[in-house]
Amino acid sequence: MTAAADLAAHLRRISALERVAGWLNWDQETQMPPRGGAQRGEEAAAVAAALHALMADPRLAELCDAVEAADPGPRMAVDVAEARRIHHRATRIDGDLAAALARTTAEAQTAWAAAKDAARFADFAPALDRVLALKRAEARALAGDVGEAYDALLDDHEPGLTAEAATALFAALRPGLVDLRGRLEGAPAGPRASGRFAAAAQLALSRRIGAALGYDWDAGRLDQAAHPFCNGRLGDVRITTRIDEAEPFYNIYATIHEIGHALYEQGLDPEAALTPAGAASSMGVHESQSRLFENQIGRSRAFTEWLHAEMRAAFGDFGLATPDELYRAANAVETGFIRTEADEVHYNLHVMLRFDLERGLIAGDLAVADLEAAWNDRFAADFGVTPPDAARGVLQDVHWSVGAFGYFPTYTLGNVYAAELDVALRADLPGLDADLARGDVGGALEWLRARIHRRGRMAAPARLIAEATGRAPDPATLVAALDAKYGALYGLA
Amino acid sequence: MTAAADLAAHLRRISALERVAGWLNWDQETQMPPRGGAQRGEEAAAVAAALHALMADPRLAELCDAVEAADPGPRMAVDVAEARRIHHRATRIDGDLAAALARTTAEAQTAWAAAKDAARFADFAPALDRVLALKRAEARALAGDVGEAYDALLDDHEPGLTAEAATALFAALRPGLVDLRGRLEGAPAGPRASGRFAAAAQLALSRRIGAALGYDWDAGRLDQAAHPFCNGRLGDVRITTRIDEAEPFYNIYATIHEIGHALYEQGLDPEAALTPAGAASSMGVHESQSRLFENQIGRSRAFTEWLHAEMRAAFGDFGLATPDELYRAANAVETGFIRTEADEVHYNLHVMLRFDLERGLIAGDLAVADLEAAWNDRFAADFGVTPPDAARGVLQDVHWSVGAFGYFPTYTLGNVYAAELDVALRADLPGLDADLARGDVGGALEWLRARIHRRGRMAAPARLIAEATGRAPDPATLVAALDAKYGALYGLA
Repeated sequence: MTAAADLAAHLRRISALERVAGWLNWDQETQMPPRGGAQRGEEAAAVAAALHALMADPRLAELCDAVEAADPGPRMAVDVAEARRIHHRATRIDGDLAAALARTTAEAQTAWAAAKDAARFADFAPALDRVLALKRAEARALAGDVGEAYDALLDDHEPGLTAEAATALFAALRPGLVDLRGRLEGAPAGPRASGRFAAAAQLALSRRIGAALGYDWDAGRLDQAAHPFCNGRLGDVRITTRIDEAEPFYNIYATIHEIGHALYEQGLDPEAALTPAGAASSMGVHESQSRLFENQIGRSRAFTEWLHAEMRAAFGDFGLATPDELYRAANAVETGFIRTEADEVHYNLHVMLRFDLERGLIAGDLAVADLEAAWNDRFAADFGVTPPDAARGVLQDVHWSVGAFGYFPTYTLGNVYAAELDVALRADLPGLDADLARGDVGGALEWLRARIHRRGRMAAPARLIAEATGRAPDPATLVAALDAKYGALYGLA
Repeated sequence: MTAAADLAAHLRRISALERVAGWLNWDQETQMPPRGGAQRGEEAAAVAAALHALMADPRLAELCDAVEAADPGPRMAVDVAEARRIHHRATRIDGDLAAALARTTAEAQTAWAAAKDAARFADFAPALDRVLALKRAEARALAGDVGEAYDALLDDHEPGLTAEAATALFAALRPGLVDLRGRLEGAPAGPRASGRFAAAAQLALSRRIGAALGYDWDAGRLDQAAHPFCNGRLGDVRITTRIDEAEPFYNIYATIHEIGHALYEQGLDPEAALTPAGAASSMGVHESQSRLFENQIGRSRAFTEWLHAEMRAAFGDFGLATPDELYRAANAVETGFIRTEADEVHYNLHVMLRFDLERGLIAGDLAVADLEAAWNDRFAADFGVTPPDAARGVLQDVHWSVGAFGYFPTYTLGNVYAAELDVALRADLPGLDADLARGDVGGALEWLRARIHRRGRMAAPARLIAEATGRAPDPATLVAALDAKYGALYGLA
């Protein structure tokens, strides 16, 4: 084989093992029996160790040298750059640390779910302490002697993102969001859904929504889990949701959000399957797809025309008589405790809270023992209320249990990118609202496929968005869009 | 760490990756969406390559030397022997061959399931050709310059088993079975179940059967698949079944069979989790557990007392008015086409057919192109009838698609061992039938736990059985038991 073919085979093996690690996690969240946890930790550790061995293999660097010397094309150049990045990263951390992280996070996930059920942070704290110690060691090793350790974790999810850049992003958004939140305070509560929403009917509706949005059910599946997520690539991209029979919107918008992720993965270039160049660009770009579908598409006035008819068919009379009432209910602005249920005005404030807390945890400025109190204090300061219990507070997100420190800022990046994509999409597709009113997102999906999905990692994240929209992403676009939308909805001056 | 701890960690990692490979297969058979096949092949290949690297690692041999020099105890000695065996095996085959086998069998399984649905052998033949070529290369490499290549594959499933020994086993059984079959020919057909057996009711009955037999549902689950199987160990042991709404016995006895396997895996010594010494002894011993539960327990007159009441509760009137009628129906002797549905008299004749055919395939004496005709000819010679289609003939078993050549003889070994275990069990537990009539297998399970399950690989397979029963296993015990049972059932002289 040539060096190029050898490198491709090596990278394909790495990608395939990453997928295996993904399936172990999916299985743990959706299928694994209660007593499977201990063994699952060992399994995850063994896969992580095998992955680390492939990534740290000196041959990987040699193959990169050989391929680079032979003047590779642009796609292979991206593969080489990614190969160098993961090799460098793997040589900085020990295989035993990688295995311990996988084992510990597999176990911590189980502890988190149980603690959340019991709404007792103390039940999760010891597991989180173990995860945090390993993540701090990893971040310190990756960051080297210079730079903030937390930056290394941000970079894992969003290449190039730093705490400084995230701070600037939040600073650009915060005044406008706080101002809008202030102006909306005291606005009259809108109409609400009412009735009981049977789980089977909700799941059937999720399937119809998936089909309407272009999700390929032959290349995926829907399961219930403690939290919604998406896992997979190309021919096998699975989503989960959570059902509350008293409340239909949680499932509907979780489904649409995860479908947004899944469309990205199903829409990658199949010719570049299991190569770095063919993978999704970054988690920020990933969240732009999920948030675009959830908010700019799913919560649009046009889409509620279609959704209202579907909900009537699924649930009968559900308390919202018209699409307009549904539109208002789906965009109710309220101070809630849960990030994933937050309206667009509050959402990024939830992210900012987590960013500051996790940055403090990694820096060692905040101890796990003090985390719940710190969460509640900050929540009261930002939102004016205190979470009634840990399940609706510090325990609500799975991220820290799985070691995904540095992930939260990608949600806000995704929101900023989604706002830019929405502007460009509407400029290119003047008939979009008419399509959405019929539940037809074919045009929008085609637009995203060509500009985002199929391009994989052929451009850096912000550049990819800029090339899709014709301008550099700017947080002001998101603030302006929210001002316009909620101003109209609530009749603000 | 000491060498002993290092060796244990290395072996645990190997066992954990073997479990991962198992879960990929379970997922493929029960959860994976239709378009997931291609990627799954890559995933299976990546895990197989990682496993091969761990097994072929020269450090594994060095650790064995170091541990052996330090006079290990009996349990560690078993671990060292197994480590040497898998290391030797891995050094004889290439990592690329191991990966190709995993990829090719993952793909062939999909092809097999589709071909079986369509009842067209030609749809499966190309995939089988690819699997066979790789298995022949593997067997040749493992067998070295001496010995029959097929022996190396038998040894994979039953350490020490050779084609010569299997031939002798079959020769010892065949005359008695053929004679019994002849004497039963023309016997009047017994009572039959009738009605429709709703899938949900069948699955609920399977759950009740599992609970009665001692299966821990917190450490397992039941799914539907194209064929019944068991996958897992200790805290996570999953079984599958197949439902035919016209016929309740397929599911009932498939469930009991797989529960027999699962009880073995759930009952291993948890202190020896993920070590070779703590693993199940061999596939022959494994099948002894499944066949013992299926036949000597599940098809006993006593157990049908309990089962009849359960079936009445599940299905109402189902055409068999009494436990005695159920006993006769569950033990109907008929020339059927399907091994997994065969009565105890015919079962081993099905195995003998497969043994001769697969031995010919591996030796190169039989080509895949001629396999269907060879199957049908041999079936006609042994059973007097020709399969009506390939689904009920050469395509009925999953084994060859997954590369499990050399597995079939372990079913017969299992039947021989089960007959011996039944004799010893009944001698030690005179109240067994009274227990079974109440659906209580607690005493039998405790007996098996102590003598088989918890002993893992602390004795070679036949020795393990001999130590449990007090005598060397003898095929004549099985023939005598079948003569007695069916003679009484059918009133033979």
